Amino acid sequence: MATSGKVIRCRAAVAWAAGHPLSIEEVEVAPPKAGEVRIKLVAAGICRTDEHLLQGCFPSAEFPVIPGHEGAGIVESIGEGVTSVKPGDKVIPICVPQCGECSFCLNPESNYCLKSHFSEPQNLLPDKTTRFTCKGKQIHHFLWMSTFAEYTVVPEYAVAKIDPAAPLDKVCLLGCGFSTGYGAAINTAKVKPGSTCAIFGLGGVGLSVVMGCKAAGASRIIAVDINKDKFAKAKELGATDCINPRDCQKPIQEVLTDMTGQGVDYSFEAIGLKETMIAALASCNMNTGICVMIGELDAGSEISLNPMILLTGRAWKGTLVGGWKMRDCIPRLVSSYLEKKFNSDLLITHTLPFAQVNEGFELLRAGKSIRSVLLF
Amino acid sequence: MATSGKVIRCRAAVAWAAGHPLSIEEVEVAPPKAGEVRIKLVAAGICRTDEHLLQGCFPSAEFPVIPGHEGAGIVESIGEGVTSVKPGDKVIPICVPQCGECSFCLNPESNYCLKSHFSEPQNLLPDKTTRFTCKGKQIHHFLWMSTFAEYTVVPEYAVAKIDPAAPLDKVCLLGCGFSTGYGAAINTAKVKPGSTCAIFGLGGVGLSVVMGCKAAGASRIIAVDINKDKFAKAKELGATDCINPRDCQKPIQEVLTDMTGQGVDYSFEAIGLKETMIAALASCNMNTGICVMIGELDAGSEISLNPMILLTGRAWKGTLVGGWKMRDCIPRLVSSYLEKKFNSDLLITHTLPFAQVNEGFELLRAGKSIRSVLLF
Repeated sequence: MATSGKVIRCRAAVAWAAGHPLSIEEVEVAPPKAGEVRIKLVAAGICRTDEHLLQGCFPSAEFPVIPGHEGAGIVESIGEGVTSVKPGDKVIPICVPQCGECSFCLNPESNYCLKSHFSEPQNLLPDKTTRFTCKGKQIHHFLWMSTFAEYTVVPEYAVAKIDPAAPLDKVCLLGCGFSTGYGAAINTAKVKPGSTCAIFGLGGVGLSVVMGCKAAGASRIIAVDINKDKFAKAKELGATDCINPRDCQKPIQEVLTDMTGQGVDYSFEAIGLKETMIAALASCNMNTGICVMIGELDAGSEISLNPMILLTGRAWKGTLVGGWKMRDCIPRLVSSYLEKKFNSDLLITHTLPFAQVNEGFELLRAGKSIRSVLLF
Repeated sequence: MATSGKVIRCRAAVAWAAGHPLSIEEVEVAPPKAGEVRIKLVAAGICRTDEHLLQGCFPSAEFPVIPGHEGAGIVESIGEGVTSVKPGDKVIPICVPQCGECSFCLNPESNYCLKSHFSEPQNLLPDKTTRFTCKGKQIHHFLWMSTFAEYTVVPEYAVAKIDPAAPLDKVCLLGCGFSTGYGAAINTAKVKPGSTCAIFGLGGVGLSVVMGCKAAGASRIIAVDINKDKFAKAKELGATDCINPRDCQKPIQEVLTDMTGQGVDYSFEAIGLKETMIAALASCNMNTGICVMIGELDAGSEISLNPMILLTGRAWKGTLVGGWKMRDCIPRLVSSYLEKKFNSDLLITHTLPFAQVNEGFELLRAGKSIRSVLLF
């Protein structure tokens, strides 16, 4: 039964234009329409993708916009026809939806959904209108999430209901960063026990890859970053070796090949730079190596490579939020978290009140945070 | 017990320099040294890689050289220490060796060998000398095979002993082209029953991919070539659809996506062109598609692509002779041939006496042959 009704006035962080700091504004959040869910956010993580958005580098986003795509909250009200969640449920909004009906959703091996933002921009809700207004202006949604707001409205098929025991200020990371990195190791690379892995980039996603490799039983996990301040955390999470390419006499791919004999079994790029994409590819075994690309280049960028790098048998794969069918799998990941199968809390270096969102971005830009979590 | 002894004088096709026709010459073939096998060739296939060699495009080859790397014959004599074959055995020399001792050979998932030509040129035998001389000049080996000669000498670990019942004029194709294409489908892509496949390029390798997809139970096999004369054979071998991109109003990747809903499950590039590599990649399902690259660009060429093509989940793989550990697997493939599990004979469009080797290359260049087999 629908519970929607009144417009809510609350705070949100609005990006009025690319390249500007966020403004904390009072916004109006319209009630959920049919098939939609209004969520009271409890916590939201700051991910580099939000920074890309703020810099104007996220393809087909539109300003003004409320960023944020990693969060957790409680259902406040539901629109007509919504049956999978009810007010009071703890939920995580998901950045790749799962409509359950399209040919991809019906394919057990696929975690893509035809309602994803790769098929159509998610700057407005599916009915092509926004639920946000501020100072009389319509504000765009971001990836249907817009978690930098006290309340947000998302389609039902972009919400995962989770265990009521879950601490929302912690499991909010499972909405994007943690799941992407952890799943890249578990689902996309399918890391095997006893194998060797290299992870390029030790941000929140890269460190989640480290955790995934460890959970999969890799015997050697080599963490690569030009910021050595990140090495202690990487070791705490499972890295056996940490390398700063700037300290090396040889290209990093040669260093890794020397260290492992024939290259690692699995390499991961979690930065989004051309040079590290090529280096990650060249670092894995030329015949059986699997390189998983997680980082994104700026929209429209191209990478140039000699295909011989693949011809001897390497595989180069991409991953979409770690290969999870998110509505099905996020609740299971939350259960695994509660069972202490992994400790994603270690990724949270800063907890800030929501009003300090811009400080969170400063920490990110300065390489001082792994994940900052905003509390509402 | 070694049976080596005298120098054999016989005919061979010598490429004195790049860009020239082959010369049938009388050559001297020295006896096999320790660990080597001298083979009397019975049949040899003409593969496009030989054409690349003749054009001077094969990396690190050296002239003068005796080309040919697909053949079958009978052991004439063996050098000291050779135990796996004896004179009179039917054999197929293999273009990727299997020393059985290196870290790759010891890895059950790898079919690379550290003695392969990707690690070191195979222009001379492992002791860095040649067994071929002609008119007082030393002639180079090609990939340790040089099957365009009545007799050739190869290392023991580059020879596969096969069933004495095998017809050598037919199974010679299993030394390279057939095994590469068939294995690309079976081993590298791991085509599943009921899946959809697209094959770019209907030469001997591409048609072998068609056979592999059919053997794996694919329900739709779409053959793509700009030469429609190849379609009849493709259909005979299992293609369900044949498309000439030049007859299409849209780019071939869009045509294939329209035909299949979301792109094929598996795509294969068996030509070696940048455009078809990108088209093959874009033709497979954006989330679960696997694209196998079999064709080779000219040495040193680069390909430019937007990595977003992979980021949504595609995998791009290379294959090395179809993923077979060749010494172990070629004998099994020969057995499968004898059990009629596939009919590679259908790839043989021309059978020529050895002396007409240049005619065989003319047929290849004109797109008139699939495989020409030379008989000695």
